[in-house]
Amino acid sequence: MNDPLKAEPLKIGVAGLGTVGAGVIKILKERAGFLADASGRTLVLGGVSARDRAKDRGIDIRDVRWFDDAREMAKADDLDVIVELIGGSEGVAREVVELALAHGKHVVTANKALIAHHGLALGRLAEEKGVSLNYEAAVAGGIPIIKALREGLAANEITSVVGILNGTCNYILTEMEKTGRDFTEVLADAQALGYAEADPSFDVGGIDAAHKLAILASLAFGVQIDFGGVHIEGIERVTATDISFAREFGYRIKLLGVARKTEAGIEQRVHPALVPDTVPLANVMGVFNAVAVEGDRVGQVVLEGRGAGEGPTASAVLSDLIDIARGFIVPPFIVPTARLAPSRESPADTHLGRYFLSLAAADRAGSMAAITRALADEGVSIERMIQRGAEKGATDRLPVVFITHETQEGTMQRALAQLMQHQDVAGTPLMLRVEGETR
Amino acid sequence: MNDPLKAEPLKIGVAGLGTVGAGVIKILKERAGFLADASGRTLVLGGVSARDRAKDRGIDIRDVRWFDDAREMAKADDLDVIVELIGGSEGVAREVVELALAHGKHVVTANKALIAHHGLALGRLAEEKGVSLNYEAAVAGGIPIIKALREGLAANEITSVVGILNGTCNYILTEMEKTGRDFTEVLADAQALGYAEADPSFDVGGIDAAHKLAILASLAFGVQIDFGGVHIEGIERVTATDISFAREFGYRIKLLGVARKTEAGIEQRVHPALVPDTVPLANVMGVFNAVAVEGDRVGQVVLEGRGAGEGPTASAVLSDLIDIARGFIVPPFIVPTARLAPSRESPADTHLGRYFLSLAAADRAGSMAAITRALADEGVSIERMIQRGAEKGATDRLPVVFITHETQEGTMQRALAQLMQHQDVAGTPLMLRVEGETR
Repeated sequence: MNDPLKAEPLKIGVAGLGTVGAGVIKILKERAGFLADASGRTLVLGGVSARDRAKDRGIDIRDVRWFDDAREMAKADDLDVIVELIGGSEGVAREVVELALAHGKHVVTANKALIAHHGLALGRLAEEKGVSLNYEAAVAGGIPIIKALREGLAANEITSVVGILNGTCNYILTEMEKTGRDFTEVLADAQALGYAEADPSFDVGGIDAAHKLAILASLAFGVQIDFGGVHIEGIERVTATDISFAREFGYRIKLLGVARKTEAGIEQRVHPALVPDTVPLANVMGVFNAVAVEGDRVGQVVLEGRGAGEGPTASAVLSDLIDIARGFIVPPFIVPTARLAPSRESPADTHLGRYFLSLAAADRAGSMAAITRALADEGVSIERMIQRGAEKGATDRLPVVFITHETQEGTMQRALAQLMQHQDVAGTPLMLRVEGETR
Repeated sequence: MNDPLKAEPLKIGVAGLGTVGAGVIKILKERAGFLADASGRTLVLGGVSARDRAKDRGIDIRDVRWFDDAREMAKADDLDVIVELIGGSEGVAREVVELALAHGKHVVTANKALIAHHGLALGRLAEEKGVSLNYEAAVAGGIPIIKALREGLAANEITSVVGILNGTCNYILTEMEKTGRDFTEVLADAQALGYAEADPSFDVGGIDAAHKLAILASLAFGVQIDFGGVHIEGIERVTATDISFAREFGYRIKLLGVARKTEAGIEQRVHPALVPDTVPLANVMGVFNAVAVEGDRVGQVVLEGRGAGEGPTASAVLSDLIDIARGFIVPPFIVPTARLAPSRESPADTHLGRYFLSLAAADRAGSMAAITRALADEGVSIERMIQRGAEKGATDRLPVVFITHETQEGTMQRALAQLMQHQDVAGTPLMLRVEGETR
C-alpha cells in the first residue's frame, strides 16, 4: 500500500452546503486519518461553494477557498473532484457537473434528477475524459446499491429490480397503517416532522422514486436511462381503508419501483402495490428504503437501510470519494455508454398479474351482483372479496375490495373503464397491482 | 474506457473444480463479452487444477492448461490471478494462496477458514507484493458484504455487525419452527436434501459462522482477525418446544454471529439467540443469510441473500475478478495490515442483555416457587414466564421458560450453575441471549 503521506492528496471541492454538504465536510475532518489509511492518500477539502457564505453550518470552513459561483470552482485547476450537492436536473447543478467533467475532474453527485435526465450524456463525457462519475448517494441514500449493481453483482444477468425508493411515501403509508388515519392528515404530520417537503408532489407523486428507478433499470439491464419510459402513479389516492383491507388479505401497501426485463422489453413502473407480508420488502417500515435485486446466478439479494438524511447520504458520498482516491474509476453504467442499448419499453397492457380493486358500491339490493357481473363480462376472475358495512358520513356507499386472479393489465383497464361508468359504483375505483408473489 | 480487444487479457487459474469452480468457469465462458465490456479487458481461463482430470463437470476444459498440482499453477508465469476453491485452512489451499501471492499474483478465494486463521499474514503478503487478496465469496455467498464493508460503508465507524451466517443452521431452525419436529430429525432431512454435510459439526456447531464473523469483525472494527476470540455455541440443544415458546413471546430463534464494539473491547459471539419478530433478521428464513451493519453515519444497513451454492458463490468470485481486471486493488482489510490493532476481547461476563431460560421443572407442589426463588436470590429478575403441562413421555417434568429483565452475563451464569444443581430442575437448562432489541 502507498504511504498516504507520500502520495498526492486528493483535492475536493464541495458545491452546495446543505445538511449533506456539511455532513461530508464533517467526515472529511473528523475521520481524516482513517480515510487516508483506507485510501492510500489524504482527502483534502480544497474548495466550497454555496449561496450564503456567512450562514452557520456547524463546520469551520474559514481556511477553505470560497467560490461565489460553483461553476468557477468546477474549472479550478487545483481541484481533482467536484462533489455536486446543489440538486435539480437543470441550471447550475447541471452546468457544474458538465464543466467539472469537461475539465477532467471526477464528479460525485447525490443528484438523482440530474442522472435520470442526463446520465447518459454525462457518463459519455466522463468516459471521454477518463474520470469517474459516481452517484451512490443519488439512489437509496446510505444503501450501497449502485456499488452492488456496478460491481458486486456485475457477473449476473439481472431480471428484476424492485424497491422501496422513497422514504417519505413509506413513512406515510406506515403511519396510515399504524394509526388508521388518512393520507392528508399523515402528510401534514410528516411535513411538520421534516419527513416531507412543503411541496410534497415529487415524493408522494412518485417522481423521486421514478428518477431512482430509471437509474437502477439502466444499471441492471445495460440499457440507456429512460426516465420518460417510467409509468408513474403516486400514493395520494390510497386510503387507510384500503390499507386495512389489504392487511386482511395478508398484504401491505407500499410505493414500489419495479423494473423488469420481459420478452417484450423493459417494464419500468412506480406505483403503490400490494406486497405479501411474508416478503422482505413488506417489512420495511417508516423512512427506510430497500431494494430487491434478482440475478440469474445470485438469486435474490435485498439491501435495506436509510434512504435519506445527512448521515446516510454523506456516507455514500464518502464511499464514492474513497473509490476515487484509491484510483478506482468505475464505468458510470458498468459497460461503456456506447454499448448501452436504447431501452425498449414493454407495453403496459401486456403485464400479467393479480390486482386489488377498491370501490364504493351503491347500497341497494343487487348492486354487488351487478358489479361482479360487469367484472366477469370483461373477463376478470375474482379470487377474494371483502364487503363492509357503510362507513360513517357515507351511509349510501359500501366499501368493497376484490383481489383478482392473474389478469392482463389491458383487461383490467377495460374493466376499470366499465366500472367508472357503472350506475352502482360511486366515484373512481382504485386499482393496485399485486407484486412480489412467487410465480 | 479501454478497448477490451486492445488491453492485455487477465489470465486466470482456477484451483479446485467442485460446483463453484465449475460455476465460475461457466460464467467466464457464457458471459465473456459482457465481462470484457465491464472490465475493459478480456477474462481468460488460463489454467485449471483439481484432483481428477477425467471427471465430467459439465464444462469443456480440454483446451485449458491442466495442472496436476495446484501449487505448480500458483507459480506459473503466464497467470495473473489464482482462484482458490480447494478449501480448508491448511494444506494445499494455504500453500497455493501463499505461493500465488509470493509470485505476485492476485488471489481470489472462497475459503473462510483460511482467511479466518491466516488472513492477517496473507493480507500482509498481498500488500508487500501490491496485489489483491479478495474473498467476497468467503462470507455470505452472493451477498456483497465484504465490498460493502471495505468500500460502500468505509466512511463509517461501525459499532456492530450481526448476521445469520450459516444457511444450514437457518434452514434447520426454520424447518423446526414450521414442522414442530426436533433437531435430529430435521438435520437428517437436511442431509438427505444436501443442505447439510455428512459431518454437520462445522455448521451446526457454529464454527463456520464463527469463521465468517471473525472476518467481518476485523473489517468492521479495523482490528486483526481474532478467530480464537469468538465465543461459540451451536444449535444442537435448541428444541422445537423452545422455538414454540419463543414464538409465543414474539421472537424467533436464529443462529447469530454478533460482533460489537464495547468500551471493554470487541465482543465476538456465535450462538442461537432470540430475535424480536419485527426486526429484519427474524424474517430471514430457510437457507438465506443476512447481515445487519450498524454505522455511526449510515445507521443500520441490512443485506440479505443466498449464502451458499454454485450460483451465489460463483457470482461473488466473478465480482472479485472484475475488480482485479479493472485494476482495483482493494486493501485486504481496508487499512494497511500494519495499522490493524490487536483485537481486545471484551469479557463475556460483562455483557448486559435479556435472557431466555428453558428448563424442565419437577412436577411437584412448590417446585416453581423454589426455582423462581433461586433466580431471585442470584439477582435475576423475571419479566415473563410460561409454564406448560407435562409433555408425553416425561410426565414428571414440566417445561418452563423465562425471559429475564436486563441482566449481566456473569449473573446469569451463576444463576444457571445454581439451577443445574437444583433439586427441582431436571437435566441442564438452556440459556439463550435475546438480541436485536432497540435499547
